Amino acid sequence: MFNSFGELFRFTTFGESHGKAIGVIVDGVPAGLDFDEEFLQNELDRRKPGKNRFATQRKESDRAEVLSGVFEGKTTGTPIAIVIFNKDQKSKDYSNIKDLFRPGHADFTYWNKYGIRDYRGGGRSSARETAARVAAGAVAKMLLKELNIDIKAGVIEIGGVRAKKEDYEYAKTSPLFALDEKAEEKWIELIDEKRNEHNSLGGVVKLKIDNLPVGLGEPIYYKLDNVLASAMVSINAVKGIYIGNSEAHKLTGLENNDEITKEGFLSNNAGGVLGGISNGESVEAEIYFKPTPSIFKTQKTVDIYGNEVEVDLKGRHDPIVAIRGSVVVEAMAACVIADMLMLNMTRRIDYIKKIYQ
Amino acid sequence: MFNSFGELFRFTTFGESHGKAIGVIVDGVPAGLDFDEEFLQNELDRRKPGKNRFATQRKESDRAEVLSGVFEGKTTGTPIAIVIFNKDQKSKDYSNIKDLFRPGHADFTYWNKYGIRDYRGGGRSSARETAARVAAGAVAKMLLKELNIDIKAGVIEIGGVRAKKEDYEYAKTSPLFALDEKAEEKWIELIDEKRNEHNSLGGVVKLKIDNLPVGLGEPIYYKLDNVLASAMVSINAVKGIYIGNSEAHKLTGLENNDEITKEGFLSNNAGGVLGGISNGESVEAEIYFKPTPSIFKTQKTVDIYGNEVEVDLKGRHDPIVAIRGSVVVEAMAACVIADMLMLNMTRRIDYIKKIYQ
Amino acid sequence: MFNSFGELFRFTTFGESHGKAIGVIVDGVPAGLDFDEEFLQNELDRRKPGKNRFATQRKESDRAEVLSGVFEGKTTGTPIAIVIFNKDQKSKDYSNIKDLFRPGHADFTYWNKYGIRDYRGGGRSSARETAARVAAGAVAKMLLKELNIDIKAGVIEIGGVRAKKEDYEYAKTSPLFALDEKAEEKWIELIDEKRNEHNSLGGVVKLKIDNLPVGLGEPIYYKLDNVLASAMVSINAVKGIYIGNSEAHKLTGLENNDEITKEGFLSNNAGGVLGGISNGESVEAEIYFKPTPSIFKTQKTVDIYGNEVEVDLKGRHDPIVAIRGSVVVEAMAACVIADMLMLNMTRRIDYIKKIYQ
Amino acid sequence: MFNSFGELFRFTTFGESHGKAIGVIVDGVPAGLDFDEEFLQNELDRRKPGKNRFATQRKESDRAEVLSGVFEGKTTGTPIAIVIFNKDQKSKDYSNIKDLFRPGHADFTYWNKYGIRDYRGGGRSSARETAARVAAGAVAKMLLKELNIDIKAGVIEIGGVRAKKEDYEYAKTSPLFALDEKAEEKWIELIDEKRNEHNSLGGVVKLKIDNLPVGLGEPIYYKLDNVLASAMVSINAVKGIYIGNSEAHKLTGLENNDEITKEGFLSNNAGGVLGGISNGESVEAEIYFKPTPSIFKTQKTVDIYGNEVEVDLKGRHDPIVAIRGSVVVEAMAACVIADMLMLNMTRRIDYIKKIYQ
Repeated sequence: MFNSFGELFRFTTFGESHGKAIGVIVDGVPAGLDFDEEFLQNELDRRKPGKNRFATQRKESDRAEVLSGVFEGKTTGTPIAIVIFNKDQKSKDYSNIKDLFRPGHADFTYWNKYGIRDYRGGGRSSARETAARVAAGAVAKMLLKELNIDIKAGVIEIGGVRAKKEDYEYAKTSPLFALDEKAEEKWIELIDEKRNEHNSLGGVVKLKIDNLPVGLGEPIYYKLDNVLASAMVSINAVKGIYIGNSEAHKLTGLENNDEITKEGFLSNNAGGVLGGISNGESVEAEIYFKPTPSIFKTQKTVDIYGNEVEVDLKGRHDPIVAIRGSVVVEAMAACVIADMLMLNMTRRIDYIKKIYQ
Repeated sequence: MFNSFGELFRFTTFGESHGKAIGVIVDGVPAGLDFDEEFLQNELDRRKPGKNRFATQRKESDRAEVLSGVFEGKTTGTPIAIVIFNKDQKSKDYSNIKDLFRPGHADFTYWNKYGIRDYRGGGRSSARETAARVAAGAVAKMLLKELNIDIKAGVIEIGGVRAKKEDYEYAKTSPLFALDEKAEEKWIELIDEKRNEHNSLGGVVKLKIDNLPVGLGEPIYYKLDNVLASAMVSINAVKGIYIGNSEAHKLTGLENNDEITKEGFLSNNAGGVLGGISNGESVEAEIYFKPTPSIFKTQKTVDIYGNEVEVDLKGRHDPIVAIRGSVVVEAMAACVIADMLMLNMTRRIDYIKKIYQ
Repeated sequence: MFNSFGELFRFTTFGESHGKAIGVIVDGVPAGLDFDEEFLQNELDRRKPGKNRFATQRKESDRAEVLSGVFEGKTTGTPIAIVIFNKDQKSKDYSNIKDLFRPGHADFTYWNKYGIRDYRGGGRSSARETAARVAAGAVAKMLLKELNIDIKAGVIEIGGVRAKKEDYEYAKTSPLFALDEKAEEKWIELIDEKRNEHNSLGGVVKLKIDNLPVGLGEPIYYKLDNVLASAMVSINAVKGIYIGNSEAHKLTGLENNDEITKEGFLSNNAGGVLGGISNGESVEAEIYFKPTPSIFKTQKTVDIYGNEVEVDLKGRHDPIVAIRGSVVVEAMAACVIADMLMLNMTRRIDYIKKIYQ
Repeated sequence: MFNSFGELFRFTTFGESHGKAIGVIVDGVPAGLDFDEEFLQNELDRRKPGKNRFATQRKESDRAEVLSGVFEGKTTGTPIAIVIFNKDQKSKDYSNIKDLFRPGHADFTYWNKYGIRDYRGGGRSSARETAARVAAGAVAKMLLKELNIDIKAGVIEIGGVRAKKEDYEYAKTSPLFALDEKAEEKWIELIDEKRNEHNSLGGVVKLKIDNLPVGLGEPIYYKLDNVLASAMVSINAVKGIYIGNSEAHKLTGLENNDEITKEGFLSNNAGGVLGGISNGESVEAEIYFKPTPSIFKTQKTVDIYGNEVEVDLKGRHDPIVAIRGSVVVEAMAACVIADMLMLNMTRRIDYIKKIYQ
């Protein structure tokens, strides 16, 4: 709860955007796993801002330091603490946003909930927190790799323009994590246009999980799909999720049901989940990101004293958060799957006997 | 986890569709609350099947029996157990579905996950389980009533046909819980048409929560919106959720940001949630239901021995689950809000002092 | 939390002493387990009052009804709800205790905590609640039986008189669950004497768990021993627990350390637990029960209006709760072990591979 | 679970004895609390080894660094991460213990549970982990101070020699945290004697909590006393706990019951807890510590290859862990009480209304 996620594979994050450090404790990681510190850093680098003009130019070194839980290259079963010190922590001038609430941001709600707010760059509500999620996700992926489970994500829609295909190979090297090279061209135009207007864009990320065993997901309230929904909507700027065919609510039962043969399902409208449990098909979901709230236009707001004021933001921000969000989607999905794998192991007496006899 | 939901207002459900009983233990209900047993029964009656031709004709008496936690008309702070005995539990003939997996149902995944399956009417994965949720939600609503928090839901889309308005008053008496009388006429036609074709329909439920205090929702992983997402997607047949304006991902930041004045927000694209915390506006969300998987057409499937077979279902089923799902949406939302109210109380030292000094 | 116990093998109890029913939902039970309903009833019968003069003469039929989670004699992986209806629920006269706080009972604290109290026979704080624990424990024992794990308990001390030996076979048929036939004779004298004086006695229960695999217990805060401590001290009237040699704090390191050989440990001062993890030796613990607070002597107290009054109890009560407490100790221990078995399965990557490859 | 403790005031610790760092994330701390960093350091200094000859001479700087959750001297409601870097982390020679299991230590069980073990100074099972608990406890104490709740502990017995009085003022400045100056003299003699024999001693710590409100503790499985038991037995070397009069199991009901008057209870055999809920009297408990397992005598053991070997330990160790354990007892108790305070706030509808209306 609060700042933790997961039951058996459980991580807890901490840190504010411009505090000393952010980090994560990943608890419940099984012992004996090869810990790939380089992979961890690579994952963080994928999320890292400042790489190109489609992400904020803020410099974050995002250098992960592993403080515990790994011994001689292997996990020991004890909690893995990973910390990222904020190098770029100079005493910036926040006087223009210190006392007022930026529209679309959590300033208003944090202030009203807690009566106090770390106003430096969004504090705890900053997207910077997602670096800690990516670190946890990297550990989860090390586990999933052992079982050949493949988690991938990419951008499928920006500003209402939809990709025509889902090319996850292409997404890997695309600066936009784009699933479609053609669509990407249009997206780049759109992004450049909106950035020049000091505006921003929303988008959709597609998640795909392959090679998942049948049986993951715990009915009734810890289903694979509802936990995925929880994980995804907890990501900054995510407003919605759809599992499987995102037109399902417009279909008839005949159109939507996936018939079954010996070779598997004849279609995958279900998105790989039936009754909250993985059915062996690819788990597929769309995740909806709102546009970056940080825009450089004059907006109406109020300050903490109740005065109506106008706000003009300055600084460096992603023109569209869905792009880097794609990396966070993968990370959260990896953590959910790791958790579900461990839970599912304990659900049958024959599995229990297999371990203890 | 598993069959429990919530942290402080936590309920645990049990029961199979055609077992002896279904029920719920609601734990964490504050003491001293007037317990309205009639209201509890009314809520169950709203969800009850067999009322009209838009719901399954299965007779469920759904008579709630309160076994504990209430004394002299008030809650005592101890767990409230509510049980609904399955009156209609006669030894029906399930031989036609006993050994095979109905497409679109959880038969396949339960069998593969557990190696055993209560095949009578879906067993645990039956929508019948949602009656227990509605009972828990009724208790949550008794609590919310004390704070004048108003939770309502209605059907906003069926078979791709969208309502033009959101009339929650009308929905209360509508047989379809329809938010729009005009749309309802078309929906009824559509439903009758599809039922005659032995087919079924999907739909969308709109949730609206009014008069919520600012500050509900616990960052980062127990936000108001991600817990709502978890709650909603855990409901049978729900495949997705969108908080706030469901076009947000297509908008620009300028269009999507809700500017703020002394009187409140100038728009509510955020759906009442900023940074995962309620901002005082109405909480609004759309919940997407797939079409009822029980259709009366011949479909391909396999049996538990791996043989390819054809299945022909018989029986009584909702032509569209979104309708009764609307009641379940309200119930789950009420439970989430009750939980969030209690959590939020503990988040400020001045609140703590208010209680203990 | 609240009325639930355990992480993976988790049960939730409900019910008041003189309410309609008490019961339990056991969640997380693995699928495919033979469910022995007769054994469940036998376990409840062992705890049942009214069997002899060493237990309260209150008649409790304690007839368990299984409402869910079992199909064709096997567990299905879904929650097992067990309910025991209170047959003996006649409208007794509680006017003598309705408004006052019985010394040694929870009347005072429930009233002050909740502002309301079900005064009928102790309400939720009654030892009657432990029947629900015994039901959960019976399910846990069915699981442990599959792995030949043997949980037993017996009375080792009453009124300061200590048993000289630990004969768990004798305890099974002893009316006092006594571990020592000789000591039992003295205990019976002592009990008869104190009962005649309208007084009561305290005692000590010894728990012994044999054939436990090495490795159970999750550091640092879910150790085998601290969870056992939590489980035991949660039982009504239990005030303390000691794991292993209960003189350990008086010993030197040299005396207390258990040296190790190929054949195992040379002694078992540790009580089978090192660093919170089972070491393969018998898990042993002493559990300390205070004397029954219900005595039939005039005692000073106050009423809910703050007046000083005298209280004279009537009714039927155990002269010593430790006796029946012995059955509850076993039940709670069984639940803890079941939980630990399942958790431990998930702690090594080679175990995970064993299941999924 | 695993490495977390508490429900609403929840902390998670990480770190190995000779790894890079140990630390803790304290989550759930209410916002607006004055954060006293000096007090935090003082608490750590109280636990710090190397201060005198009654504690290990290992040098631990134990310098706490607060990484998050505090802004301009106040808590913000976000997780407070505290890290202590291990300065004294030189590549020591562990070849003598690397492959074998020290008697009385967790080496054997960690190895067998995880199949891998950080053998440097006990790794995760080292008492060094308790520094992280003390840091969490310091934060809890900042909260309790606001309500004038006073938590104290001291040593009441060493090597079987019992204190004659409980002088918590004296304990504060005593090098042994002794509750009795006279007993302390004898204890010092005893300690010096046993240390010269390369042996060690066990002891008992007494916990006392004053000024606690009535009503803390959540029935049935999250009672004040059973959670205290869990907290205490989770501390390294603790084997048992007794709440209230530690002779209760030898008493009769008449002797043990605490009669009640307008001014309060006439005695406190209950140790301030009735039915698991605080009754307004001092909460009192005894906590039993086994002798330090690290002794400098030749002992029999086996190595990881199954060979029987003899072990001779070298190094610096506390002759008696109960002394510094006293600080950890206070810390854990503070965390439990902070948690219970927050939980209890949510248990009455009138409390809820007090916050929201």
